[in-house]
Amino acid sequence: MIGVFDSGVGGLTVLKALMRELPAEQFVYLGDTARLPYGTKSPATVARYALQAAEALSACGIKCLVVACNTASAVSLPAVRAHLAPVPVIGVIEPGAEAACAASPSGRIAVIATEGTVRGGAYQQAILQRRAQAEVRALPAPLFVALAEEGLTDGPIAEAIAHHYLDALFTPAGATPAADTLVLGCTHFPMLAGAIRATVGPEVRIVDSAETTARHVRVTLAQAGLACLGGQGGLRLLATDAPERFARIGARFLERPIRTDEVELIDL
Amino acid sequence: MIGVFDSGVGGLTVLKALMRELPAEQFVYLGDTARLPYGTKSPATVARYALQAAEALSACGIKCLVVACNTASAVSLPAVRAHLAPVPVIGVIEPGAEAACAASPSGRIAVIATEGTVRGGAYQQAILQRRAQAEVRALPAPLFVALAEEGLTDGPIAEAIAHHYLDALFTPAGATPAADTLVLGCTHFPMLAGAIRATVGPEVRIVDSAETTARHVRVTLAQAGLACLGGQGGLRLLATDAPERFARIGARFLERPIRTDEVELIDL
Repeated sequence: MIGVFDSGVGGLTVLKALMRELPAEQFVYLGDTARLPYGTKSPATVARYALQAAEALSACGIKCLVVACNTASAVSLPAVRAHLAPVPVIGVIEPGAEAACAASPSGRIAVIATEGTVRGGAYQQAILQRRAQAEVRALPAPLFVALAEEGLTDGPIAEAIAHHYLDALFTPAGATPAADTLVLGCTHFPMLAGAIRATVGPEVRIVDSAETTARHVRVTLAQAGLACLGGQGGLRLLATDAPERFARIGARFLERPIRTDEVELIDL
Repeated sequence: MIGVFDSGVGGLTVLKALMRELPAEQFVYLGDTARLPYGTKSPATVARYALQAAEALSACGIKCLVVACNTASAVSLPAVRAHLAPVPVIGVIEPGAEAACAASPSGRIAVIATEGTVRGGAYQQAILQRRAQAEVRALPAPLFVALAEEGLTDGPIAEAIAHHYLDALFTPAGATPAADTLVLGCTHFPMLAGAIRATVGPEVRIVDSAETTARHVRVTLAQAGLACLGGQGGLRLLATDAPERFARIGARFLERPIRTDEVELIDL
């Protein structure tokens, strides 16, 4: 079984990519809905929550853990890795940074994320490690989280908020744009890809870490001899609170219906 | 000392009204920022968190507790009252319902609140108890919370979102409006009063529970012989996480600067 962990439903965008990339695998997804969002909490608190979640998934007998939450990836990866070793632990920031470096012609890369992810500087660091000459600008876009949760992902409100965050980066009057690549550094943001694309125009490369993370997991499992060689695949969903809301909102993120009784309530 | 409790900074709008109404009193405010928001969490979880917060404030030696969070008021008041007795415990829903019943000429009252408050039906019930013929419509307006936290309380985005939530209630083409009174059933929403007023027009009565709650606390203390008869007043601020963010965002809600080192970090 592959464990996937997020603060709530956002990581279901990563789970969706994983299930497409690895259709024969069994997945167990844990959303820490009792304590979401992580994006506004302190690094120490998020790291503590992430360790508890990793522990709970470890007890399910996982062979690999995907930290499908940017904020938790940014602050807890070393601690979670040390705790679960030798089980491989994969976050979403390094694959996202890799994809951004590969996509950007100029090396001018913008990252939008939660407050916590931006302040921690993990994307900035991961991009500069791969491309030392890159110019990285990171800024928080917290309203996108609320829009995605409410399903208000298209239309004038979503686009007005996208302009509010992105105009300064991508449409400076007459000058070179501050970036040619935009990293969606929060698992909620791919839900708003349409409104974001309408705002930044067709030239900007938009990168999200879901696909890259999924490929990274496939390669890691294959190299470790842990890949599932056949079978039907499967999914178990766990949440720490409000299974009805998880099912209702999560269905949009996973792009398939979720029954409330599919969501097991657990206590960390 | 009077204890005031909220999931985060929203309750500072209630604290501000309390400090105006009772300038000689000492206050201790606790924001449970490690676990906010409460509005999307289950009643059982919110009630558990509220009890822990009440316990922590009780340990500070309070003479009265104000639950300055609509969601917590909606689901935890009986349990918190039983736990703290004989210390009086005052929520924000009953004062808000009282103010709405007094303000509405027609008895058609709309309530906007968090998902949790709306689903629990506490406002609907509290209004109907006071005015059995009232027609109450409650609807969740979660994006207002994100807007208030981000300080995006005026301008086209705030007004577009206000139209999104409120047009169906207050501007049905040619018909009698569904309500003549709007209750701001979440402590974040008074921050958006300007945009809400611009959307619903000058005729609609807008009610928030902060002032009514403050008067209710004054009367309760006087009746119990617990009022402070003189003195300078004072404020102690506690948070369960991220004091820097509490200070930065809370300052807008309290309408006075808050230094990060004024905010004491506590663990529940």
